[in-house]
Amino acid sequence: MRTHVKVLELRTSERFQLVDITRDVEKVVQESEVKNGICVVHAPHATAAVILNEHESGLIRDILNKLRELFPPDAEYMHNRIDDNAHAHIASALLGSSKVLPVVNSRLVRGTWQNIFLVELDGPRNRREVVVQVLGE
Amino acid sequence: MRTHVKVLELRTSERFQLVDITRDVEKVVQESEVKNGICVVHAPHATAAVILNEHESGLIRDILNKLRELFPPDAEYMHNRIDDNAHAHIASALLGSSKVLPVVNSRLVRGTWQNIFLVELDGPRNRREVVVQVLGE
Amino acid sequence: MRTHVKVLELRTSERFQLVDITRDVEKVVQESEVKNGICVVHAPHATAAVILNEHESGLIRDILNKLRELFPPDAEYMHNRIDDNAHAHIASALLGSSKVLPVVNSRLVRGTWQNIFLVELDGPRNRREVVVQVLGE
Repeated sequence: MRTHVKVLELRTSERFQLVDITRDVEKVVQESEVKNGICVVHAPHATAAVILNEHESGLIRDILNKLRELFPPDAEYMHNRIDDNAHAHIASALLGSSKVLPVVNSRLVRGTWQNIFLVELDGPRNRREVVVQVLGE
Repeated sequence: MRTHVKVLELRTSERFQLVDITRDVEKVVQESEVKNGICVVHAPHATAAVILNEHESGLIRDILNKLRELFPPDAEYMHNRIDDNAHAHIASALLGSSKVLPVVNSRLVRGTWQNIFLVELDGPRNRREVVVQVLGE
Repeated sequence: MRTHVKVLELRTSERFQLVDITRDVEKVVQESEVKNGICVVHAPHATAAVILNEHESGLIRDILNKLRELFPPDAEYMHNRIDDNAHAHIASALLGSSKVLPVVNSRLVRGTWQNIFLVELDGPRNRREVVVQVLGE
């Protein structure tokens, strides 16, 4: 069995933002030389998330609008007595911060319209990390 | 280490639909001859998802009603200037398209009421795929 | 390849509750003696879930409030003709009952503010289980 890990380092520029990391993840899969196994894409953050979907500019805005609607930053939250980002924590908890994709014949298995995005929910941040781990043989 | 992959092919008949794939997934686990490991159930689609829950007809309708409520197809979306399925993309992004379950002593570890469903969010479709991968030894 | 599994047994005391299981999960990772691999944290229940987030008392109440808002127990559900917990099933289906985290250099990879919680959605219950599986080498 083989495992390979790389930590992507990202900078975000907006409070709510989707950052496409598909190419970076695929590069780690390639470097890993794993032929068959899995790829775990994990953001070790409590105010960010990882999702899969199409990279289309209108859709990206729709997704961010839905996140603002479901998790409004200016609602009343108890956590905001000590901080100002409860909406981001709640969204991160409900969306999830990791995804697992199969690797088959040295390729990440994803749909044509399934790009991989870090979801920034409390930006801008100078440093966000995404841990990409490939495990298999 | 052993890996085994099978692609399930499904046809859907409704715009919003849950398709129970539990038996198909368990058959792949059995075929894999993996005794201890994991099973990844992944829909390579940006307008579908995979969830676990009870197969009860009233509950299935409740889940679909909640999806229509949270992600209404007839709301205004920017993506719909070029397509008509933004609601399905957003729901797929937020629900997630894959699940990972342990395999222990050659059995998929799931609760009594935990069936595995493909969630169709933009049907009907002649061909949906679910990639079932078993990894272990 | 090595696999190690332990079933945590929990008791819950509220209808909606977050139970922090971070220490228990980390203990299983340590016991497993896996140096590099993954940890699957899976609740085999259709009315509970597993999430990651910060253990701060105000935030815990914010998350539970959001769950009650998105999945109100007293709304009308078809499943409630035969039971009274449709809200919990729907929330479990949408939140997901398992999480996968990398294990690197014998440590669970998680953010400083990323604790692991069982989400009780239909408590109190005398016995909830969480299956913790570590796989790697």
